[in-house]
Amino acid sequence: MAYSLDDRGMSIAPDGKSYQIPPQEARKAQLARTAEAAEAWRKRGGRVVAVQGLGFVGSAVAAAVADARDDHGHARNLVIGVDLPSQSAYWKVAKVNEGEPPIRAPDPALENVIQSAVRAGNLRATTEPEAYGLADVVIIDVHLDVSARATEASSIRVDMAAFESALRTVGRHMRADALVLIETTVPPGTVELVAKPILLSERSQRGITAPLRLAHAYERVMPGPKYMDSIRRFWRTFSGIDAESRTLARDFLGSFIDVEGHPLWELDNPAASELAKVLENSYRATNIAFIHEWTLFAEKAGINLFEVVRSIRVRKGTHDNIRQPGFGVGGYCLTKDSLLAQWAATHHYGGGVDLTLTLQAIRINDEMPLHTHGLLTTVLDGKLAGKRVAILGASYLPDVADTRFSPTATLVDAVRRDGGIPVVHDPSVSTWMERPDITIEPSVARALAGADAVVFTVPHRAILDLDVETVLRAVGGPCAIVDAQDIIPDSKAELYRNAGCRVVGVGKGHWRRQGMEGPP
Amino acid sequence: MAYSLDDRGMSIAPDGKSYQIPPQEARKAQLARTAEAAEAWRKRGGRVVAVQGLGFVGSAVAAAVADARDDHGHARNLVIGVDLPSQSAYWKVAKVNEGEPPIRAPDPALENVIQSAVRAGNLRATTEPEAYGLADVVIIDVHLDVSARATEASSIRVDMAAFESALRTVGRHMRADALVLIETTVPPGTVELVAKPILLSERSQRGITAPLRLAHAYERVMPGPKYMDSIRRFWRTFSGIDAESRTLARDFLGSFIDVEGHPLWELDNPAASELAKVLENSYRATNIAFIHEWTLFAEKAGINLFEVVRSIRVRKGTHDNIRQPGFGVGGYCLTKDSLLAQWAATHHYGGGVDLTLTLQAIRINDEMPLHTHGLLTTVLDGKLAGKRVAILGASYLPDVADTRFSPTATLVDAVRRDGGIPVVHDPSVSTWMERPDITIEPSVARALAGADAVVFTVPHRAILDLDVETVLRAVGGPCAIVDAQDIIPDSKAELYRNAGCRVVGVGKGHWRRQGMEGPP
Repeated sequence: MAYSLDDRGMSIAPDGKSYQIPPQEARKAQLARTAEAAEAWRKRGGRVVAVQGLGFVGSAVAAAVADARDDHGHARNLVIGVDLPSQSAYWKVAKVNEGEPPIRAPDPALENVIQSAVRAGNLRATTEPEAYGLADVVIIDVHLDVSARATEASSIRVDMAAFESALRTVGRHMRADALVLIETTVPPGTVELVAKPILLSERSQRGITAPLRLAHAYERVMPGPKYMDSIRRFWRTFSGIDAESRTLARDFLGSFIDVEGHPLWELDNPAASELAKVLENSYRATNIAFIHEWTLFAEKAGINLFEVVRSIRVRKGTHDNIRQPGFGVGGYCLTKDSLLAQWAATHHYGGGVDLTLTLQAIRINDEMPLHTHGLLTTVLDGKLAGKRVAILGASYLPDVADTRFSPTATLVDAVRRDGGIPVVHDPSVSTWMERPDITIEPSVARALAGADAVVFTVPHRAILDLDVETVLRAVGGPCAIVDAQDIIPDSKAELYRNAGCRVVGVGKGHWRRQGMEGPP
Repeated sequence: MAYSLDDRGMSIAPDGKSYQIPPQEARKAQLARTAEAAEAWRKRGGRVVAVQGLGFVGSAVAAAVADARDDHGHARNLVIGVDLPSQSAYWKVAKVNEGEPPIRAPDPALENVIQSAVRAGNLRATTEPEAYGLADVVIIDVHLDVSARATEASSIRVDMAAFESALRTVGRHMRADALVLIETTVPPGTVELVAKPILLSERSQRGITAPLRLAHAYERVMPGPKYMDSIRRFWRTFSGIDAESRTLARDFLGSFIDVEGHPLWELDNPAASELAKVLENSYRATNIAFIHEWTLFAEKAGINLFEVVRSIRVRKGTHDNIRQPGFGVGGYCLTKDSLLAQWAATHHYGGGVDLTLTLQAIRINDEMPLHTHGLLTTVLDGKLAGKRVAILGASYLPDVADTRFSPTATLVDAVRRDGGIPVVHDPSVSTWMERPDITIEPSVARALAGADAVVFTVPHRAILDLDVETVLRAVGGPCAIVDAQDIIPDSKAELYRNAGCRVVGVGKGHWRRQGMEGPP
């Protein structure tokens, strides 16, 4: 939290609303009011919790912790969300203090909880690092990103500077007996090898000799309609640097998670907990990559791989999580967690371990949308130049607005490279934050008008519901149809074909057998 | 079934019993009696089924089909098992006719069913191909093996000759209206591109113009105590070359499988069914390889990966099949099915599809036992020459005698290469059929006596139950201990260490943290 920042000017939220970053004296005055509230809260026996980072995870965790109640229905925790007074971050602080979530989520619980906790006074946000000094528990939810997303082990770069600086800030202000709970997904080994020495050094400079309490508990937040439940009603794995840290972490996690329904899982040491997080996401990513190479096989052999996968999934417990063919992998976790792991193997543990299969999987996933691009190219007889391509879907999950690392970006880039004209529509997304160069066309009819090809990329409800007649009327005649994610059932494919369209689909080899791909 | 064969002399069974191959006239006389029985059976409205190949699958399928009963408890099918009158195969025919299973399985149901069906007269075995001419259904359960088990796509060789010849024999003798049901795991495309043309050609030479009925239904036989249930009470996927073939296959499969509890899954075309089989086994193989590379990471980072995996498995439906670290992959299916798939991509579908991730997984699995060898080498300070290494476990599954492609063979070879002296004991295995150069020491005490190192490779019940004192007394002093497959719990590891042993284990990085690996 100490990148050089411009703490003046306006900070603009994704909804377009702009917030003036307050001058320092105003920020300090707000901190003083927060300190007063924290003091009063602690006197009444309540716990004070600071959350560092108000992004996708931090803001939802802050809400969940603020909403935790004791047996009498009283809030257990006073939560102070902390983010930077910078143009790119301040709006999050402002949003929370207005009682609004800084992220859009299709789960109304998030908004309800933040609104009522802010009104009740046990959720506030601040820009001032002195807030850490008010807390019994400091939760670290800052970003730690891969700066070079390579899939060759030696080329991966992880920028630890921001994370280290954030930790240093905490160490400089934290109470001697506070628990630091790291939730950020980190390269395994980071808690013991990076965070612990930083915190110890900052504390020792402050003359603190009390033992450090430091734990790791990773979140499994799932963007979507169960956003809050994915924090409060889901399993948690955790560990700490010593027995007391583990006990404190267990107590705290139990204060806002339904641990009766989802018992906590305590591991030996923080490295185990850190590894578990990147391992489970790598497992998912590898399973997706695995099915992709079989998708190419199935298409060639005239096989409907979706149906094959359904037949295999009857084997509960061993094969029921085999993935379906698809368009690509997006989001913040599955695309990078394996890279964090490989980086840790090299930089924290001296090398000699190569996650070759895992990295190959990430490579396959990165390139996956190019297969849809290949189908598109085939069905347009290799000529994309000047062709209008309607792309229906920009987010990486159905009915979720999240566009981070969306595979649609890869498709758009490939179409542009070939001289095609991509027109992107998404019923859940109005602006593509990460890719301002890609305009989202709000009207599906306008996106389709005059299209040479329509690529169905994301199974949003509204996209699934589009009937053939509506599409063809909007397009204005027959066109090429590419189904990237099992959006078009066989019955619709037949209708498109009967209307003169050529129809291809990822994993839909049987359409080739049925002559769907042939010229109309 | 037309390899050049020596149909004279003795055929020796794995149990050591030898059988004189009967002269041709005796074989023909036996066939005549079988034909009479089949005729009578059919007259009473029963179905006659021939099973080609009496190996691990064929003999169990023959038993299951013979044991199928109608609502009145009467056997539905007369089953004729067919195998070759050769020195390497005839004993199977003889065993079945004696009422004994030709394979050893820890499931008593197999022996019971074969015994009672042979007594009742509705299960017999023969060497004569004319038997196919007696059958309403011919099941193909012959081997189809990879002759070059390479993991580079271009180096894989599949020997189709024996399979093609077996099909030709069936085509030469089958009834015009019989259903041919292929159960053999084949390269996808084989039913349509190989079996169908062969059968059609043989039939046309016989003047048969009736449509061919040809289907594919793959088995999921699992060696072990539920051998018979893995055929009769498990899901089946199938398809056929046309609607009538699919209907006949459905009716027949429903006659001996519990389809109410395990509904049949019908796919579009045989290639889909063939693909499903190699895909599901490749999925399993890839998941095993995936966890292996994380095993190396966990050991380096001082992490108990078994515990981490247990913590991840709470995520039911998405992550509960993540594999545990282990010793290696054995058996007939997981080691080769992916190679069949890649061969099919190249030879049946014109190339251009590389199952790179899948083949890499097979490569990792092939080499996996070398990691245990590496741990062994480390714990013996790099000096294996002249060292006595007790290896406890030779089969590839706990409490199952199956040694086909067992990873223990790879370890034995590696120890020998380094000049070490491997001594193999296995409570389930008396002789290692496929590796006559490896003697199985029947006494665990003699295997352990004077060992410099003990490698626990297979979690057979008897191996799990070995207590520390017994092992150390048999060894005669402290020795190096290597746990290749979570056989030694932490409590035992501690005891070994206290007795002066160095202890290492696959996936047990926490032992390093605990100083187990250090010199005593």
